[in-house]
Amino acid sequence: MNHLSIHALEDFPLIRPNDNLSSIIIDSIINNNISIDEGDVILIAQKVVSKSENRYKDLSKINPSKEAINIGESLDRDPAFIQLILEESNEILSTDKNVIIVEHKLGYININAGIDRSNISENKNLVLLLPENPKKSATYIQSQISKQLKKDISIIITDSMTRPYRAGITNFAIASSNIQSLIDLRGEEDIFGNKLLATEIAIADELAAASGLLMGQGNDMKPVVIIKGFDRSKYSINNAFDLIINKDDDLYRF
Amino acid sequence: MNHLSIHALEDFPLIRPNDNLSSIIIDSIINNNISIDEGDVILIAQKVVSKSENRYKDLSKINPSKEAINIGESLDRDPAFIQLILEESNEILSTDKNVIIVEHKLGYININAGIDRSNISENKNLVLLLPENPKKSATYIQSQISKQLKKDISIIITDSMTRPYRAGITNFAIASSNIQSLIDLRGEEDIFGNKLLATEIAIADELAAASGLLMGQGNDMKPVVIIKGFDRSKYSINNAFDLIINKDDDLYRF
Repeated sequence: MNHLSIHALEDFPLIRPNDNLSSIIIDSIINNNISIDEGDVILIAQKVVSKSENRYKDLSKINPSKEAINIGESLDRDPAFIQLILEESNEILSTDKNVIIVEHKLGYININAGIDRSNISENKNLVLLLPENPKKSATYIQSQISKQLKKDISIIITDSMTRPYRAGITNFAIASSNIQSLIDLRGEEDIFGNKLLATEIAIADELAAASGLLMGQGNDMKPVVIIKGFDRSKYSINNAFDLIINKDDDLYRF
Repeated sequence: MNHLSIHALEDFPLIRPNDNLSSIIIDSIINNNISIDEGDVILIAQKVVSKSENRYKDLSKINPSKEAINIGESLDRDPAFIQLILEESNEILSTDKNVIIVEHKLGYININAGIDRSNISENKNLVLLLPENPKKSATYIQSQISKQLKKDISIIITDSMTRPYRAGITNFAIASSNIQSLIDLRGEEDIFGNKLLATEIAIADELAAASGLLMGQGNDMKPVVIIKGFDRSKYSINNAFDLIINKDDDLYRF
């Protein structure tokens, strides 16, 4: 594998609840004059998946618990928003830097349980949760697009996240279908015939980061990106949930 | 910016101490029949920069300090290797999971101070340190290649690293020249005219991750990758050292 090309779909429409996202992606691929080949990877920003699945919540209709009210007061935040964060999370890990870092109930470590307030709506009371079951969403979109285009494509759903130790956000894989997410080189040899030590590569996160270069964040948002040329043949398929490391294996939780 | 293409240089030679890396990259670009355009980004694995700068150390010639001997005994590791880690680091952050996580003296948080033992040599006593001044290395290579090819190119030096909360390694930017590393969208508006909240994008890390898809880690290692089509015009240039977040600003150090 020596060459990849990355294409953002231009003029992708705003997605509304219950839109058929797979059909809209296919229409946009056609409008962009892109031909889909076997093995192409289609990366989709979480936001449009959530919108199509109507994961909106109206903060004015949320009844915050006592816990949410207390946290809201201590952090000077809307208790209704805190209530949603609590409902979406297994655990609050920190509020130390006036930012709410949680373990999302799907396992991701993120800020505000990944609940989004930008690029959502003119109505500032509307927020957007992560897809309820992003693995299922990825699998469904993968099967729909593969069937309609008669090409065996792959899907990665991405979200942009902050990282420990590093400034700025990058795009990560939160779910995938029909592609390697983590490949395991342990047991292979280096160029001098020495066994490689622990080397697992987070391929789906690298693909997601590559797509992030074109997706943008502001008013130039392009939520669907296609990567052509990625060789899926060498390693076994696994899901992006394998990229969530458990606490005991996480070298950096000390 | 709607399209990027990524090319790995095939048959890149093994690099020896004092090799002229810029010339070797140019020769390889010619041998690979790649034409370089204004603004192309050339990403180089740290390992070949370090080799050309003769950053090898021979463990059999290291005199470990008492501290290194103690740590070596408690972790069942070669004290000479520990000695090098100590010399390359500001501080050991953790040895809790039988892995040495440090703040490297250049600021990176990494394992074993980024000292490499794979793909180095048949001599198992040889290890390879990070470049002494990767920012200077990037600037020098950038000026040499730009001058010789008469194209204003950009350089990113990359290293693969493990990450908190996520399984597997991805490729990161450890130094850069003549490119944005962190772009700041704060103050821009989303598609509904709402101000974006804190949104800094770690562009150089996304470029590095994209290059990691082609660089490989085992015996297929391709240490130089070219990304074509990246638009440098919109934001101001800054160095990859801006991607190292200080402890107080790091939301995840609580």
